[in-house]
Amino acid sequence: MGDRTELEFRQALVELVPAGATLLAAVSGGGDSVALLHLLARAGRRRLVVAHLDHGLRRGSAGDRRFVESLAGRLGLDCVSARRDVAAERRKDESPEEAARRVRRAFLSETASAVGAEHIATGHTLDDQAETVLMRLVRGAGATALTGIAAAGPGPWVRPLLGIERSDLRRWLEKRGLPFREDPSNRSARYDRNRLRLRVLPLISRELNPRASRHLVRAARALREDALYLDALAGELAERLCRVGPGARVALDAAAWSEAPSVLRRRVARLALERAGVDPRRIGSRHVEALIALCGAPGGSELHLPGRRSARRLGGRIEIGGA
Amino acid sequence: MGDRTELEFRQALVELVPAGATLLAAVSGGGDSVALLHLLARAGRRRLVVAHLDHGLRRGSAGDRRFVESLAGRLGLDCVSARRDVAAERRKDESPEEAARRVRRAFLSETASAVGAEHIATGHTLDDQAETVLMRLVRGAGATALTGIAAAGPGPWVRPLLGIERSDLRRWLEKRGLPFREDPSNRSARYDRNRLRLRVLPLISRELNPRASRHLVRAARALREDALYLDALAGELAERLCRVGPGARVALDAAAWSEAPSVLRRRVARLALERAGVDPRRIGSRHVEALIALCGAPGGSELHLPGRRSARRLGGRIEIGGA
Repeated sequence: MGDRTELEFRQALVELVPAGATLLAAVSGGGDSVALLHLLARAGRRRLVVAHLDHGLRRGSAGDRRFVESLAGRLGLDCVSARRDVAAERRKDESPEEAARRVRRAFLSETASAVGAEHIATGHTLDDQAETVLMRLVRGAGATALTGIAAAGPGPWVRPLLGIERSDLRRWLEKRGLPFREDPSNRSARYDRNRLRLRVLPLISRELNPRASRHLVRAARALREDALYLDALAGELAERLCRVGPGARVALDAAAWSEAPSVLRRRVARLALERAGVDPRRIGSRHVEALIALCGAPGGSELHLPGRRSARRLGGRIEIGGA
Repeated sequence: MGDRTELEFRQALVELVPAGATLLAAVSGGGDSVALLHLLARAGRRRLVVAHLDHGLRRGSAGDRRFVESLAGRLGLDCVSARRDVAAERRKDESPEEAARRVRRAFLSETASAVGAEHIATGHTLDDQAETVLMRLVRGAGATALTGIAAAGPGPWVRPLLGIERSDLRRWLEKRGLPFREDPSNRSARYDRNRLRLRVLPLISRELNPRASRHLVRAARALREDALYLDALAGELAERLCRVGPGARVALDAAAWSEAPSVLRRRVARLALERAGVDPRRIGSRHVEALIALCGAPGGSELHLPGRRSARRLGGRIEIGGA
């Protein structure tokens, strides 16, 4: 088992980070990131620096910091660690998790620049991916649920564990007697993500299929490829059918648009609204359906849109612009 | 709430069953099918006959039969009921649920013919749909997970409750004081479907999102439309690129095929294998990937396929035929 895990890791790493690059490894001290660090150290061929942020959010965090610093020392690696008061830095519109994430990402980006690292590796696993997909699916993200977590990007971020299950990583560590820290906040049911991780997915694995996470991730990948290809087709079609004028005023060829297959028609509606300056986050399926209905409506019919924009049926066109 | 449920039902019914048709309603006596029967009776405009099968699998089933017969009588409807010994009729390769399903479907089909019903309505709800999608996703059905349950077909079957949540139907019944029978086997954790219904989906609703089932079904519908459109594009492409010869020997234009976008390339591979007589249930993603890899392989390279078929690289073609 250990060898298969290590092989999978090296295949992923080769695709993500070229030999000779400098890599910053984000290590909290938990099982995932400790496995990441050992696997990176064993893979060699890249300069490796360890980064650890103490979020100052709970007792025991100083112990995590000492653990990571000492692990880096034993592996002969440089380690940059810092303590930040995330609670104090939290902005009004942020949840505690959002604040922790923002501060952590800023710390890692700054540290990468300071040590000359081209890449930052994090310990996201296949289970994180399955959790993300399932969470978005049941919350109504629709097709965008499948976007999930990318193995690379944006920018310097890479996630070489994304195809590996957490349980395989734990076994890999145990087999070699490699210790890690338990983060008690991972066990708290205060966070949705933890409830999914601690209750929902284990129940699905136990009751329905032990490989549920892997199956979910695989299905999401296939469906995402379908969606991306259709997005590209719709982009070409929108390019042909939309004329963008001054003030982001969009004129859409109604006849050609209403003849497109419905999976493209809906995507083109979304793109036309975006080009006309409607905030993408505020475009719901009811706006898309209403814009499509406008094609069959009498000339002069009007539709009110978010952000004080509106759409009008004028001759053979749908015009979208300021209300 | 009651009125919205009834309105949703009537809209679905109009699309599924024309006025004047004769409809057989499959009624177990449980909440879903009792709601179906009342909603159908109130909608009128169709001749309605009730069918009930006593599977003879558990105590209390005779009481269900009397309940359904008496309900049909009070509604002034004909009722065809029968008792079958499903345990005795079970075939070797069937689970008890599969046997019950087969015997029940045969009984309903025969009864529909006998009473001259063009359609058979069953009580499948939006929750059944969500359960089906989630069950298939976590079991590795991949993109086909999203096929789900169809509102109409095959043949005479229609499912007018498929867009309505079970909890809305229960409220609709309660508000009118309409009784139904509790099926104790619905509470048994012996069946995967029940574990999903009784444990997994309630946990997801409670922990993550109360409208999880509706969101899952909506995402599945959008993704299914994407997949069907790509299936159609791939069908056209396969038509152009495959030449089928004697003995289901298929010649595939390797150059044109390898230039197709990957979401179409994979689908065309599947279609080519099916046309060459490979059993669709035995075509896995590794066969699809291996066939694609054959495009880049040296001439004469060979690939062994299920059912003693094989594929060979010959000049500009991939030939699939008997091994």
